[in-house]
Amino acid sequence: MSEPLTPLLDRIHSPQDLKGLSREELPQLSAELRGEIVRVCSVGGLHLASSLGATDLIVALHYVLDSPRDRILFDVGHQAYAHKILTGRREQMATLKKEGGLSGFTRVSENEHDAITVGHASTSLANALGMALARDAQGQDHRVAAVIGDGSLTGGMALAALNTIGDLGRPMLIVLNDNEMSISENVGALNKFMRGLQVQRWFQEGEGAGKKAVEALSKPLADLMSRAKSSTRHFFDPASVNPFAAMGLRYVGPVDGHDVQELAWLLEHLVDLDGPTLLHVVTKKGKGLSYAEADPIFWHGPAKFDPATGEYAPSQAYSWSSAFGDAVTELAAADPRTFVVTPAMREGSGLVRYSQVHPHRYLDVGIAEDVAVTAAAGMALRGMRPVVAIYSTFLQRAYDQVLHDVALENLNVTFAIDRAGIVGADGATHNGVFDLSYLRSIPNVRIGLPRDAAELRGMLKYAQTHPGPFAIRYPRGNVGRVPEGTWPELEWGTWERVQEGDDVVILAGGKALEYARKAAGGLPGVGVVNARFVKPLDEAMLRELASRARTLITVEDNTVVGGFGSAVLEALNALGLRVPVRVLGIPDEFQDHATVESVHARAGLDTAAIRTVLAELGVDVPLEV
Amino acid sequence: MSEPLTPLLDRIHSPQDLKGLSREELPQLSAELRGEIVRVCSVGGLHLASSLGATDLIVALHYVLDSPRDRILFDVGHQAYAHKILTGRREQMATLKKEGGLSGFTRVSENEHDAITVGHASTSLANALGMALARDAQGQDHRVAAVIGDGSLTGGMALAALNTIGDLGRPMLIVLNDNEMSISENVGALNKFMRGLQVQRWFQEGEGAGKKAVEALSKPLADLMSRAKSSTRHFFDPASVNPFAAMGLRYVGPVDGHDVQELAWLLEHLVDLDGPTLLHVVTKKGKGLSYAEADPIFWHGPAKFDPATGEYAPSQAYSWSSAFGDAVTELAAADPRTFVVTPAMREGSGLVRYSQVHPHRYLDVGIAEDVAVTAAAGMALRGMRPVVAIYSTFLQRAYDQVLHDVALENLNVTFAIDRAGIVGADGATHNGVFDLSYLRSIPNVRIGLPRDAAELRGMLKYAQTHPGPFAIRYPRGNVGRVPEGTWPELEWGTWERVQEGDDVVILAGGKALEYARKAAGGLPGVGVVNARFVKPLDEAMLRELASRARTLITVEDNTVVGGFGSAVLEALNALGLRVPVRVLGIPDEFQDHATVESVHARAGLDTAAIRTVLAELGVDVPLEV
Repeated sequence: MSEPLTPLLDRIHSPQDLKGLSREELPQLSAELRGEIVRVCSVGGLHLASSLGATDLIVALHYVLDSPRDRILFDVGHQAYAHKILTGRREQMATLKKEGGLSGFTRVSENEHDAITVGHASTSLANALGMALARDAQGQDHRVAAVIGDGSLTGGMALAALNTIGDLGRPMLIVLNDNEMSISENVGALNKFMRGLQVQRWFQEGEGAGKKAVEALSKPLADLMSRAKSSTRHFFDPASVNPFAAMGLRYVGPVDGHDVQELAWLLEHLVDLDGPTLLHVVTKKGKGLSYAEADPIFWHGPAKFDPATGEYAPSQAYSWSSAFGDAVTELAAADPRTFVVTPAMREGSGLVRYSQVHPHRYLDVGIAEDVAVTAAAGMALRGMRPVVAIYSTFLQRAYDQVLHDVALENLNVTFAIDRAGIVGADGATHNGVFDLSYLRSIPNVRIGLPRDAAELRGMLKYAQTHPGPFAIRYPRGNVGRVPEGTWPELEWGTWERVQEGDDVVILAGGKALEYARKAAGGLPGVGVVNARFVKPLDEAMLRELASRARTLITVEDNTVVGGFGSAVLEALNALGLRVPVRVLGIPDEFQDHATVESVHARAGLDTAAIRTVLAELGVDVPLEV
Repeated sequence: MSEPLTPLLDRIHSPQDLKGLSREELPQLSAELRGEIVRVCSVGGLHLASSLGATDLIVALHYVLDSPRDRILFDVGHQAYAHKILTGRREQMATLKKEGGLSGFTRVSENEHDAITVGHASTSLANALGMALARDAQGQDHRVAAVIGDGSLTGGMALAALNTIGDLGRPMLIVLNDNEMSISENVGALNKFMRGLQVQRWFQEGEGAGKKAVEALSKPLADLMSRAKSSTRHFFDPASVNPFAAMGLRYVGPVDGHDVQELAWLLEHLVDLDGPTLLHVVTKKGKGLSYAEADPIFWHGPAKFDPATGEYAPSQAYSWSSAFGDAVTELAAADPRTFVVTPAMREGSGLVRYSQVHPHRYLDVGIAEDVAVTAAAGMALRGMRPVVAIYSTFLQRAYDQVLHDVALENLNVTFAIDRAGIVGADGATHNGVFDLSYLRSIPNVRIGLPRDAAELRGMLKYAQTHPGPFAIRYPRGNVGRVPEGTWPELEWGTWERVQEGDDVVILAGGKALEYARKAAGGLPGVGVVNARFVKPLDEAMLRELASRARTLITVEDNTVVGGFGSAVLEALNALGLRVPVRVLGIPDEFQDHATVESVHARAGLDTAAIRTVLAELGVDVPLEV
């Protein structure tokens, strides 16, 4: 019988089991965990590099803290695979992000050790603040620890939470997991400052405003300093102030985030100190896997690969993101007013080439969607034609900026909304199924849903040459490539009949149009309309259709509450037309992770669902097409 | 003929006219401006204290900068009365916040010197960032200067913008107008840090990361230091770092924000330096008006007063905010799980007494609505029953936090949404007319509109004792007082018939219900329903009404796009009921400042408008009631 691959890990079924290990055994446990994570992730589509980077940290935290009594919060939550494995979910790791399986992030409803439900960045500190206040109000004494990456710390709500945390001084541990990047390379001045800290490698303790932080920490800190094994300099200088110390936090670091024994020792000394402590830990994304360490951006969430060699089959697919990136790169070459803004999503939004070709008209603001939108407003006020490239789910974080900073003065800002609709494996936190509803209710905002890359280009060109804010939404996934120079003229605000038929008419835009066309293909009397504008609607065509049709069907990859179907109902009611409407779309519930197709089928908006509705309406639908 | 009150100011009709003054004349101009502002504000309802505090700064900025070529951005914009007076709007100041008159904030569509349209806090820095990038992309060389208060700087998007501004290093002037408060007293660690700076009174210049800031500034800074007339110590220590310098900004300050000559001299030296410079200016809210200096919170936006004495008639009115404050104070006394969170709106939200009675279950996070909502989520995850007290317009800034951090796990968070609907004088930026639309589309969120203080208490009690997020919205204005201990039992999700009648039925909740009752009072056949739940709707009653009525009328103080009327249309369509619906509410346009009554009349949802609709529907409506 061969040696087991993971002798230590095999003994761990809960964080309690960790306590039985000696500190000297922790490095081996980390190594075993990393091996497990690589095997799990080699099926593709999982968060490899960040989970490898956080493994030592997670081992140390669970070794020292007492979860679930103590609460350990992971910002974003995609780095917490080691946490999932250590908290009794090892056997289910193969189900990660699959329907009915584990979430790709932490979820309170999944496991008692998951302290927050998360997916969006920068929320852990405000959550931790609330938990610490709740603990103190209830006279409890457990620990609250938040693990936040340097990328998430560029988000305003994390910085603002830090401001209040430092002010209130409640005991809390914040571990800054500093891997020098979010998904893309990190930007921002704080990031540069942290690089400076890493060069200096200082321990520093600021005078916590009004608190006796120095006294409380001086003994252990003195110990730490004498034990510090690095050959570089450490500073202990209460008079000098770093930004964290200035905010009232006890700052310790930076320390090596892969020396798990040292981390455990350190945490033991820090975890029961009074007031908030920020431990600055330096980690490497992709740690332990040479090819992932070398290119952590690629290995952030790789496709299927050979864990031994890192070999993978490069994707030949052409994504909607690439189609957007190609179009806007071409557009900017012709129009000096084009300026693309991204909140830390260069790769995801298809902007790598753009950022190289037009570096002076490219802005990455970090994970700060609000800043992205309002910076675009500032550009528009000065004659530029900014394009905010953003995922639907993240635009939710800038709702007020769209309304207050852009729409109120009808500014020329284009929103290129990627990952609109159901996104599949990333699940409830990442589905982009609210944008039609929340954007539609904002005055001046117009909304288009291109059916293909050519229509995307047409809308983009239109947006760049006409006044006012324009939101163009397109889904996750692939699309047919179109030649350079394709700039179809779009007749503004018009829908397009793609199948004649007046008895039952299906109205659908974007991805939903594909379903509608397949469902209705060739059925007599059934019309299909490319409802590519959700705001404004093509009221002339709607009136014409409604006056003849027995029933209209609307299909949308968006919640049915306040979405496209509602827009049609509002318009019909205002026009005094009383045709029945079957509104198909995402029901008023959060949709968990599964394939896009599966969610659409369950939600009742895919081809089969539409055919079922047609059959219910008495259309003669063959069983098989 | 008597001496003119404002001999200098009488000569100023544009910022250009300022250039003809000597620096020695500036203090007198400031004094004249302040007198003018006090006279203007004595009519009541205007932003007195902050405008007095910023006057010297504004004079100095317009003296040195060259607006409109140079762009001067005022964060929030309510402190810019001196700016309005100096930019040709003196004669119109009596129309401030009145229908057809000047906006209470800066608006780009009002005047070429207004660089941004604003009302919400913390947006100026991202706007300035966008403008600086637009300037550089277009090869222009004008200046961009943002004036931001210490309160606005507690907002995450300001901090995040600072992070990118420091990183990119584009020339820009940021004036931190530090008056030690927003509307309430300021909170937060940065604020404490700034207090520390004021005690120390140091000039400090950090090593701008990678930039030659020190060299660029050393000569003028040396001059400054030799000129510095204070008796306290000044530091110039590039090795020590303050949070602003750590973010890559050249930090200068703090300086006296009421020494207008010194400010002008300083600005002349700072305004053309390379890279971003932050000038920290200390001002006093209410400057020059003894009673306002003594109580700047009260004098933030006082009612009508005697400018000579500060006498005013204290308001006897009982506001919705007070009704909420009283209710939640009482509730928290009985329920140890209650915890109130406010984003810097203690006074506005009626929480002064609460914060005194329950200081340990009260959290003010500063102007950081996102942190407020997510901190509440963290509390709810730990067994508390947090209540987020927030204005409707500001909840827009936490849309994603409501969705991602609260609703996704159906957490027990109550939203007490004040100033819902049209707010009147504060205008387009402050109207709370989108909440029904954007909240309704979020799964799990339930929405109630109390008709009076008793129903507010019933809903609040219900929210605190049942699971899931519950949004209770109520308007600006007054409401009848109810006795302590009033806790009516509310039958969940039910509407209430307040006038019998089956021919035409008016559905309305909250403020709109008042209009409906007055319009329909005693008219035979016209029913009125208190539609106090917008989500869920009372479908049983709706079905019953729709099956009998000739027409339904919905009335809402919310946009008609995706709001209550849409909810009714969706439900009727889903139920297969085809009764015509007249949807009255705020049209799909931003509504400028005017009285609430006037906006409601124009929008067509007030009593007269409803009566007109009734008459159109053939109801025998007497001309006068």
